[in-house]
Amino acid sequence: MITELAVPIVVAPMAGGVSSPALVASAVDAGAFAFLPSGYVTADALREQIARTRELTGKPFGVNIFAPSAKSTQDTSAYRDAVRAEASARYGVEAGAADWDDDHYAAKVDAVVEARVPVVSFTFNLPRVEDVARLKAVGALVVVTVTTPEEAVAAAERGADVLCVQGAAAGGHRGVFIDDPAYPGGGPLYDLLPALRLISAEVDLPLIAAGGLTSGADVAAVLAAGAVAAQLGTVFMRCPEAGTAAPQRAALAAGGRETTVTRAFTGRPARGLVNRFITEHPDAPGAYPDLHNLTRPMRAAAGKAGDVDGMSLWAGQAYRFAREVPVAELLGELAVEARTAASDLARRLGVLG
Amino acid sequence: MITELAVPIVVAPMAGGVSSPALVASAVDAGAFAFLPSGYVTADALREQIARTRELTGKPFGVNIFAPSAKSTQDTSAYRDAVRAEASARYGVEAGAADWDDDHYAAKVDAVVEARVPVVSFTFNLPRVEDVARLKAVGALVVVTVTTPEEAVAAAERGADVLCVQGAAAGGHRGVFIDDPAYPGGGPLYDLLPALRLISAEVDLPLIAAGGLTSGADVAAVLAAGAVAAQLGTVFMRCPEAGTAAPQRAALAAGGRETTVTRAFTGRPARGLVNRFITEHPDAPGAYPDLHNLTRPMRAAAGKAGDVDGMSLWAGQAYRFAREVPVAELLGELAVEARTAASDLARRLGVLG
Repeated sequence: MITELAVPIVVAPMAGGVSSPALVASAVDAGAFAFLPSGYVTADALREQIARTRELTGKPFGVNIFAPSAKSTQDTSAYRDAVRAEASARYGVEAGAADWDDDHYAAKVDAVVEARVPVVSFTFNLPRVEDVARLKAVGALVVVTVTTPEEAVAAAERGADVLCVQGAAAGGHRGVFIDDPAYPGGGPLYDLLPALRLISAEVDLPLIAAGGLTSGADVAAVLAAGAVAAQLGTVFMRCPEAGTAAPQRAALAAGGRETTVTRAFTGRPARGLVNRFITEHPDAPGAYPDLHNLTRPMRAAAGKAGDVDGMSLWAGQAYRFAREVPVAELLGELAVEARTAASDLARRLGVLG
Repeated sequence: MITELAVPIVVAPMAGGVSSPALVASAVDAGAFAFLPSGYVTADALREQIARTRELTGKPFGVNIFAPSAKSTQDTSAYRDAVRAEASARYGVEAGAADWDDDHYAAKVDAVVEARVPVVSFTFNLPRVEDVARLKAVGALVVVTVTTPEEAVAAAERGADVLCVQGAAAGGHRGVFIDDPAYPGGGPLYDLLPALRLISAEVDLPLIAAGGLTSGADVAAVLAAGAVAAQLGTVFMRCPEAGTAAPQRAALAAGGRETTVTRAFTGRPARGLVNRFITEHPDAPGAYPDLHNLTRPMRAAAGKAGDVDGMSLWAGQAYRFAREVPVAELLGELAVEARTAASDLARRLGVLG
């Protein structure tokens, strides 16, 4: 399904409402593939989102599930106090409880099995052995997001059918299985091309390439490098169908900010636009989703106030190329660009008459 | 010259003897392009190397020159003491003086102008205005290595004809013009594909893509992304023509080590295989080439002793794909791989009948 797309592009599952049913439906209708995100919502909300998307399209689409992260052993008390003070003083809200949760993982697997979702991807960790078996029993394709060759090997051993290889330029959360505090990015940050090369030497699975891709030429590039499809997220964030919050749309359109990888908002390394909150909290502990729960009310209040300096502005490294056009039009442009790049390449290397 | 190569591959100027006259000559004879490095040698030694290379080939080749880095204002005294103690206790040698130098920049520009070297690349900073003028007056093409869109704009304004875009996966020194201590890599680390995209939006110059590329499919990928050529370094380090030291060859062949970006050996961020010295000095000051001069005797002694834990083992992120074959054979393999990738891509996207 993912390996033979008419348009070899996958719309990334951007949680928090960004990859909305409308975005997903428009993308699959246009010949691409797309994942509905399920992070931060309940299993019932996921069921509703699946139903809503199916009302909008008859084409198959996937669902992404956050596999639980290990409970952090890091001391979060000082950070908790700092965020509490800031949430109250600056935004007039109470910070959330810095608690771990599993994001309703098991109930969501139940939901996608029941709903016969044909492609289910997992991020942040491996799916449980029994869940892989259940998904395969109903004919679903299992995709696992990996950031290193070691994670790729583990995912292959767990029975993944396809891997989504996340390069360092990717926007949003890093998919590291274990957040190693020795690394600002939770683990070694591989560039996408070497990641594809190293991983394809270790596992014999189709690879989706993700991270920093915003043009059809980039899509052609990762296909040339051996990927079966390119996963793009940020480039769709300004589409009218996306659920991107207005202040974040404005920040993407404005450009000018660098991106960086931070644990400040959620306790898990994630790439976003640099803002005050990130700059003021360079040493946030690695405790996900504890910090996500802690900062959530503050981020919501900042978003309502249109204060981009208190929100998480997840975005990939080439975010300035996000285009404010409908999804179908954008996918059409990307497809043309990819074909042009492929044709130019073939001519350059003398493989086209 | 670089934009229309028979084999669109550039052999990187790997200083310290790695990109030897034999490596450069073999590469250009095989239809690729190559740069003779001039870092750490005198202008007279460079003249000899140019003459030696010209004895080996009648084809044109380039020369790379380190443009002087700004003198660091960081306090290096504690680091100096630590390295002195270690050099003496562990390797029985006296550490070098932690002094700044300009690596004979002006005399080397004189040498390449006199020798009518047709392509001259600069790394670590912009060439001086008057040197760009002198080089252009003798018909030389000026290449500048850049790591960010800002550096690309500055290089274009300085008159560069071609840019070499260095992605985060590249082995060896980062080309940052100013080493910003706020970043472990001296500046933001861009993945290669977003770097190409962002830079091509800012400047209208041919781009050579560098960093983490080790297969012909990678070459095809960066050409598809819009580069005119791919610069590869690490993949050539095990060629018999390369001047790579035996212990480093062994370390590359062994694999198993991660790479990381460190200032420990030279004071300038550089990517190499993780070893004891890097691990023990995570917070080396940004003072190049002061630290290069400081650690040089220790590195030489470690090299002689075959102790890879005291040497700088510069290598790109996908170093395990360095191939132990002659340069011409390796370039032949890479060219076939690139054509195969281009042909598969064209077929996949329906642009090949």
